[in-house]
Amino acid sequence: MLVIGEKINTSRESIKKAVETKDSEFIRKVAREQKEGGAHYIDINCGTFIDNEPELMEWLVEEVQKEVDLPLCIDSPNPEAVRAGFEAHKNGKPMLNSISGEKERYDALAPLVKGYDCKVVLLTMDDTGIPTDAEKRFQVAKDVIADLKDGGVKEEDIYVDPLVQPISTDTTNGLSVLETIKKIHKEFDNVNTTCGLSNVSYGLPQRKLLNQTFMIMCMTEGLNGVILDPTDKKMMGLVTVSNSLLNKDPFCGQYLKAYRDGLLEI
Amino acid sequence: MLVIGEKINTSRESIKKAVETKDSEFIRKVAREQKEGGAHYIDINCGTFIDNEPELMEWLVEEVQKEVDLPLCIDSPNPEAVRAGFEAHKNGKPMLNSISGEKERYDALAPLVKGYDCKVVLLTMDDTGIPTDAEKRFQVAKDVIADLKDGGVKEEDIYVDPLVQPISTDTTNGLSVLETIKKIHKEFDNVNTTCGLSNVSYGLPQRKLLNQTFMIMCMTEGLNGVILDPTDKKMMGLVTVSNSLLNKDPFCGQYLKAYRDGLLEI
Repeated sequence: MLVIGEKINTSRESIKKAVETKDSEFIRKVAREQKEGGAHYIDINCGTFIDNEPELMEWLVEEVQKEVDLPLCIDSPNPEAVRAGFEAHKNGKPMLNSISGEKERYDALAPLVKGYDCKVVLLTMDDTGIPTDAEKRFQVAKDVIADLKDGGVKEEDIYVDPLVQPISTDTTNGLSVLETIKKIHKEFDNVNTTCGLSNVSYGLPQRKLLNQTFMIMCMTEGLNGVILDPTDKKMMGLVTVSNSLLNKDPFCGQYLKAYRDGLLEI
Repeated sequence: MLVIGEKINTSRESIKKAVETKDSEFIRKVAREQKEGGAHYIDINCGTFIDNEPELMEWLVEEVQKEVDLPLCIDSPNPEAVRAGFEAHKNGKPMLNSISGEKERYDALAPLVKGYDCKVVLLTMDDTGIPTDAEKRFQVAKDVIADLKDGGVKEEDIYVDPLVQPISTDTTNGLSVLETIKKIHKEFDNVNTTCGLSNVSYGLPQRKLLNQTFMIMCMTEGLNGVILDPTDKKMMGLVTVSNSLLNKDPFCGQYLKAYRDGLLEI
């Protein structure tokens, strides 16, 4: 299970302020805490700064890499910001978050994905929007995967994100995502899946309970990547618990270690 | 999701004592609390009383029905105790817990299942024991289902229990159960599944966390019955949350009601 830490995003007020004041200490602290929580990748998003996103992306990538030895997830639809992030990246293989089946976005970003040795998040949407049913989401992913593979991208570097939508607006929204994850893993031996979870609970009370439960459901269908807050002990504990129940933890070793470290909250 | 309340079982010390002293008040209280917690069936097990199980089963069934209007789950491998329970049963359709592919047990109990209008729990084991893999568990179930249907039993009255075993002794034990549940629902449109959960966590710390997570996983694969303690608010809350995410709760109505009633604990 690949955990992508979501916290360095300028849509969050504290990060926005830190970027504006070039508060390197704060950014590095947020990166360090995510690594300590168990993140494998650190997402970097400064998309709210439209005028100088590439320059700020470069700065963030450099600062974060001074603090942690993890690879980073360059989170932008702007090819210049992505290129700046990739060029500044040193810790292993960067990830692009994200491409989709939208023609303009794809045409702009696919050359970068094919040109760099990177991982990539693929959103299951195209120019008609986010399909409501799993079959169409799967088709969008399938077409893009075929083109990426033609361009030399390996299946294991692709992470399909089925785009979680709120069950409060349509109660089939959870099932569509679960079904898409299942289809991807059934059809492709080595393509990965990932998603952000919190959208599922939008508009409902006790959102954490829905997000936690939905993550377990997605993992049951094969989800092997997730974008979340790795400093959320409860959520990270549930990743460990789920791995153990799904036979991804030999001798329950990670489970027992997490217990000893006080990381399994009831 | 059919919830079977597990608490009236003489393997529990307080119930054993209440049966010995014919403490009708206590038994009725435990029945009432399970109904209030959301149980649809109340399980009755007095199997520790080998010498007079039929007589005690009759007494328990009568007492519980004085308190609650729920149907009961007659939990015994002893045909005489089952018959006594069925004969005393008045609240709708009783359930037998359980038959299996074990020849002696099946031959003794199948006539009762075929002769009464009842539901039945079918354990996926035969005279060779509990198969370790899902395919064999499924085959055991398939053979028994065929014979029950020949005898006039309807699919919708059958609840297959794939027999949860601890992941601490074999880390594939969780997956085997999930796979069996999936196969049953794929092969049979109307056969149900059920299981007890707590075995999965035997031998490990923080058992509740494993049991809760495993229930969510089983529901993701289609589990539509469960044997548990309905006074466990956290577990019952997770049933509600899971139903909502799996599109079994129109407009999230049950979810919102549970929230208003203070039944959704984080």
